[in-house]
Amino acid sequence: MKAKENGPTEQNTSRVIDGPTNPMVTPLLTDLYQFTMAYAYWKAGKHQERAVFDLYFRKNPFGGEFTVFAGLEECIKFIANFKFTEEEIKFIQQTLPPSCEDGFFDYLRGIDCSDVEVYAIPEGTVVFPKVPLLRIEGPVALVQLLETPFVNLVNYASLVTTNAARHRFVAGKSKLLLEFGLRRAQGPDGAIGASKYCYIGGFDATSNVAAGRLFGIPLRGTHSHAFVSSYMSLDEIIDKSLRKRDGSSTCEDFVSLVQSWLSKIQWSNSLRGIFGETNQSELAAFTSYALAFPDSFLALVDTYDVMRSGVPNFCAVALALEDLGYKANGIRLDSGDLAYLSCEARKFFCSIEKEFKVPGFGKMSITASNDLNEETIDALNKQGHELDAYGIGTYLVTCYAQAALGVVFKLVEINNQPRIKLSEDVSKVSIPCKKRCYRLYGKEGYSLVDIMTGENEPPPKVGERILCRHPFQESKRAYVVPQRVEELLRCYWRGSSDKEREPLPALKDIRERCIKQLEQMRPDHMRRLNPTPYKVSVSAKLYDFIHFLWLNEAPVGELQ
Amino acid sequence: MKAKENGPTEQNTSRVIDGPTNPMVTPLLTDLYQFTMAYAYWKAGKHQERAVFDLYFRKNPFGGEFTVFAGLEECIKFIANFKFTEEEIKFIQQTLPPSCEDGFFDYLRGIDCSDVEVYAIPEGTVVFPKVPLLRIEGPVALVQLLETPFVNLVNYASLVTTNAARHRFVAGKSKLLLEFGLRRAQGPDGAIGASKYCYIGGFDATSNVAAGRLFGIPLRGTHSHAFVSSYMSLDEIIDKSLRKRDGSSTCEDFVSLVQSWLSKIQWSNSLRGIFGETNQSELAAFTSYALAFPDSFLALVDTYDVMRSGVPNFCAVALALEDLGYKANGIRLDSGDLAYLSCEARKFFCSIEKEFKVPGFGKMSITASNDLNEETIDALNKQGHELDAYGIGTYLVTCYAQAALGVVFKLVEINNQPRIKLSEDVSKVSIPCKKRCYRLYGKEGYSLVDIMTGENEPPPKVGERILCRHPFQESKRAYVVPQRVEELLRCYWRGSSDKEREPLPALKDIRERCIKQLEQMRPDHMRRLNPTPYKVSVSAKLYDFIHFLWLNEAPVGELQ
Repeated sequence: MKAKENGPTEQNTSRVIDGPTNPMVTPLLTDLYQFTMAYAYWKAGKHQERAVFDLYFRKNPFGGEFTVFAGLEECIKFIANFKFTEEEIKFIQQTLPPSCEDGFFDYLRGIDCSDVEVYAIPEGTVVFPKVPLLRIEGPVALVQLLETPFVNLVNYASLVTTNAARHRFVAGKSKLLLEFGLRRAQGPDGAIGASKYCYIGGFDATSNVAAGRLFGIPLRGTHSHAFVSSYMSLDEIIDKSLRKRDGSSTCEDFVSLVQSWLSKIQWSNSLRGIFGETNQSELAAFTSYALAFPDSFLALVDTYDVMRSGVPNFCAVALALEDLGYKANGIRLDSGDLAYLSCEARKFFCSIEKEFKVPGFGKMSITASNDLNEETIDALNKQGHELDAYGIGTYLVTCYAQAALGVVFKLVEINNQPRIKLSEDVSKVSIPCKKRCYRLYGKEGYSLVDIMTGENEPPPKVGERILCRHPFQESKRAYVVPQRVEELLRCYWRGSSDKEREPLPALKDIRERCIKQLEQMRPDHMRRLNPTPYKVSVSAKLYDFIHFLWLNEAPVGELQ
Repeated sequence: MKAKENGPTEQNTSRVIDGPTNPMVTPLLTDLYQFTMAYAYWKAGKHQERAVFDLYFRKNPFGGEFTVFAGLEECIKFIANFKFTEEEIKFIQQTLPPSCEDGFFDYLRGIDCSDVEVYAIPEGTVVFPKVPLLRIEGPVALVQLLETPFVNLVNYASLVTTNAARHRFVAGKSKLLLEFGLRRAQGPDGAIGASKYCYIGGFDATSNVAAGRLFGIPLRGTHSHAFVSSYMSLDEIIDKSLRKRDGSSTCEDFVSLVQSWLSKIQWSNSLRGIFGETNQSELAAFTSYALAFPDSFLALVDTYDVMRSGVPNFCAVALALEDLGYKANGIRLDSGDLAYLSCEARKFFCSIEKEFKVPGFGKMSITASNDLNEETIDALNKQGHELDAYGIGTYLVTCYAQAALGVVFKLVEINNQPRIKLSEDVSKVSIPCKKRCYRLYGKEGYSLVDIMTGENEPPPKVGERILCRHPFQESKRAYVVPQRVEELLRCYWRGSSDKEREPLPALKDIRERCIKQLEQMRPDHMRRLNPTPYKVSVSAKLYDFIHFLWLNEAPVGELQ
C-alpha cells in the first residue's frame, strides 16, 4: 500500500533484494534433519504438498509481558536469494547415506523460493505469545528447510530488541543510550546484530564501527583506561599548540594553560582541599586527547581516582579548551558508586561554573558504563543520580537475564488439512489452521486484545461485538466491540508472483515504528513489576475447531 | 617445534593464513574509541611506541573453577589478514571529526600486523583467571585497534567451549553428546561458533550443516514433529517396496509388514494391554521415514503419546526392518519425564527382544532433547535413566547460565615501562609488566599452580624450590618444588619475521588437547559442587614490583 502512495520502492520495481547481512547465512545454515526430512518427503512423493507453518513464541522474555518482533528483513533477504550452489549440493550428497537417490539432488538443484508466500507482522511491532509473527506457506520439503534459519534470524533479533526497549523504558526518554557490547557479544555477528537491533529498540548510538558502516547507526566513542595509562607525564607532549576555535589566534603552550587551570581549581575558594596532587599520566593523556579532539573532548575519569584525580584533571583541560572557544563534552565513569560519583562530579562542575563564571559548565554531560543493566539503572533512579547517558554492553547484547527466546515453527496445515501438535504441557499445544490475526483497539486508543481466526472467517468489524476466547481455557472469554481493527499479518514475500507485497522499510522507519508502538502500549502491560498480561485470543469458531481436532488426535487412555 | 619434527606445515612454509571464518570480521569490527585513540596517539607522535597488552579474564564462568581457552585460531587468522580497504578508510574519515588530519589516514592505509607479536596459550588448554591467554606486543595505536575483535573472538569461544566441557563432565564419557543449538543461538555465527567450540569442548556431533561443512564436524539429525504431523494415514504411502539389506529380494508391501508387527506386539504376552490403537499419522510418518532411511531409522516418539503410540509404532517399524536385515538406530524423546519414559521405553525394548527373540533390540539407542542443561542431566543421573545420547541446544549455545565471560585487554607495558590499572575493586587491578607464565606440576602428575614472572627472570626449574605468591594477598604464598615445568605462552604470530612460530593445529587436535587436559585436572577443581580454586601466583620479584608500582600510582588520600 505504501508503495502506491509514495511511489514504487526499489524492491517493488526491480524485485532485487540483497542477500542477508552475514554472507554465512546460506541454505546450509540449517539442521541436518531438514535435509533428511526433505529426502523422506521426496522419496514418498510428498515434497510438493502445500504446507502452512506458523513461526511464534510461547512466552515473553525477561519476566515481562511484551516482545518486539525483529529479524524479518533478514528472513526476506534470505529467501529472496535462496538457491543451492553445486558445491553445497555435493556436500549434502556426501553427508546423506549413499543409498539416497540422485533424483533428490536434482530436485535440490532446482528449488528456490518462487513458490513460497510469507505473511508477517511488520518488523518493530510489539507482539505477544502464540500469535504468528510469520506465516510461511509453500511446498512442505522446502519450507522445512527454511525453519532453522528463520528461527535463528528471528530469535535473537526479537530478544535483543526487546531487551533494548526494556532498557530504554527504565532509563527514560531523556537519557542518551549507547550500545557498547561488541567485545562481549556472542561472536562477531552477535555483535553486529546487537548493534542493529538495539538501535531499533530505542538506543541512540553504538560503539561498533562495522555496524555503523553497515546500517548507518550513529557511532560513539572516546578513549579507554589503556590510553590514560599509556602516558607517563606531560613531558611526552611535544606539539603543545592549539588554535582557537574561531581561528583568530593560536595558543602556543596548551599544556601550561591546562596546568595553570589545575592550580586555579585546586586553590579556588569552593574547591580547596578536595584534591591534592592529581595523577600526571592522566593529566597528560587528557591534554593529549583534547589536542586531538578539541571540539569533542570527553574523558574517562576513573583510571586512578575519580574525585581526587580524574574530575579535577578533566576540568583543568575543559577550562583551558573553554579559553580557546571550545566546549568540552563531559566525562565517563566506568567503576565505583555511579550515583554518588555522578552527584559529586556534578557538584564539582557547578562550583566551577559559579566560581569561574563559565556558563553551562555545570551541565557537563556525565556518562556511566560499568556493567549496567535494567536493575542497576532502576537502582540508580531510586538512589538519585546526575547521569545523562548510559553505555551498556554485556547485559544488553548477550541478553544476560534471559539468553534465548523460545521461538518455534509449527506445521498448522498441509494439503488444506489443519494439523495440531499435542503435548502433555498445554502451553506447547499448537494452534492449527491457516489463520488471520487482528489487533482490536478500544475507545482510549489502546489495543485491547489480539484475535486469531480461520482464514475464511469474516474479519472483526469496527463497532460490532465479537467473542474473543482463550485458545485453551474454556472459561476465559470476553466480548469486545473494537473501535479500530488492524490486520497483523501482511504479505512480505509472494515468490515470483507479480502481486503486490510490502516493501522492506528502512532501519530508521523500523526504529520509529518500534518506539511509537511502545509508547502507545497501555502502561500496565509495560511496567517492570507485575505487568498485566496482554490478551491473546481465538474466534469462537477456531476455538471449537482446535478442541475437535485435539480430541481427534489424542489417544484414549486405559486405566488399569 | 612440531613443524620441525613433523615436516613443515602449510602455515610455516607458505606463511599464507586464511582470513577469519566469518568474512564480517574486518578491521572495522572494533569500537570507535580505538580509532579516536589511534588518532590521538598519532597526533601526539606516540602511535609507534612499543606496547604490551595482556588478554585475560578475571573469574571462571558457571560457578566453576576452570575455563577452556578457545578462539585463538580466529584471532591469528584476523591479524594475518589485517589491512584496511580504501572504502574502510573513507568510512573512518567520514566518521571522525573533519578536523582530523589527512596524514592519519595515510598512516592507516599503511598498517598491517607485520610488526606485531602474539604469544598465546595453545587453544584447548584449561586456563585460569588473571593468567594472560594472549600477550600482544606492537605499536600502541595498532594493538589497540586489535583489542575489540580479539576480545570478541575469545570471549564467546572460551565461554561456550567451557560450557560444552561442563556438559560432557556431567553427562559422562560414555554418552553421545549432540549440539542442537542452531535455531536458538545468538545470530548465525553465534550458531556456527557454538558448533565449532562445543566440538572442541567434547561434543560428538552437531545438527548444523553449515558448521559441518566449514569444520568437518560430524552431523546428526533425523526428523521433527512437523514431519510426523504432516502425515494423515498409511494410505499416503504409494511406493511400499523395500529391498532386503543384502539385496537378495524385495518386500513388496513394507506397510503391511509394519502393520502385522504392530498387531503382534499389541497382542503379545508381555506387552498386551500397554497400548490400544496407536496414532496412524505417526505410524505412516515412521514407515515413510524408514523407507527413505532403512539403514539409519531413528524416530521422534513424543508427537502424540510416547508409550501408547510412539514407542509401539517405532517397534513395529523397527521389527519390520529387522525382517529385511536392517537394524534401527533408536528413538528420540523431546518432552515429558525423560528419566521415567526412557526406563519405560527400555523395558518395552527388552520385552520385545525376549518375546520375539531379536538379539540386541533391548539395547536400542534412546536420545533425549528437551531443554537439557547441566542441572537437568545431573538430575537425570540422580533419578536413574536409560538414555544413551543427549541433544542439547538453547542452554548450551547461549550459555544461558552465564551469557558472557569477562575477558579484558590491559596495557601492561609501554616503551619498556610497566603500567598498572588501579581500581577500588582489588580483583580489577591489572598485573603489570611483560610477563612469562608457567604451569608447575607435582609428583602425582597434576598441575599444582600457575606462576607469572617478569620477562627476564630465570624460569622455574624442575626440582628447585620456588616461592609462589598470591598477586594481591600478602599472606597467601607457598613454596613449590615442581616435578615438571611447562611454559604456557608460545609464539603464534611474529609479524613478518622469519623466526619460527607455532602452527595452527587442526580442529580435531585442539579437541583432543582439550579432552586430554580436562581428564588430567585434579578432580576437586572440576567437581560441580564447591570446586577447589586452582592457584594462580606471581614470583616474589613480580609481587614486590606490583606493589611498588601500585603505591606509586595511587593518589594519597587526605582525611578531613
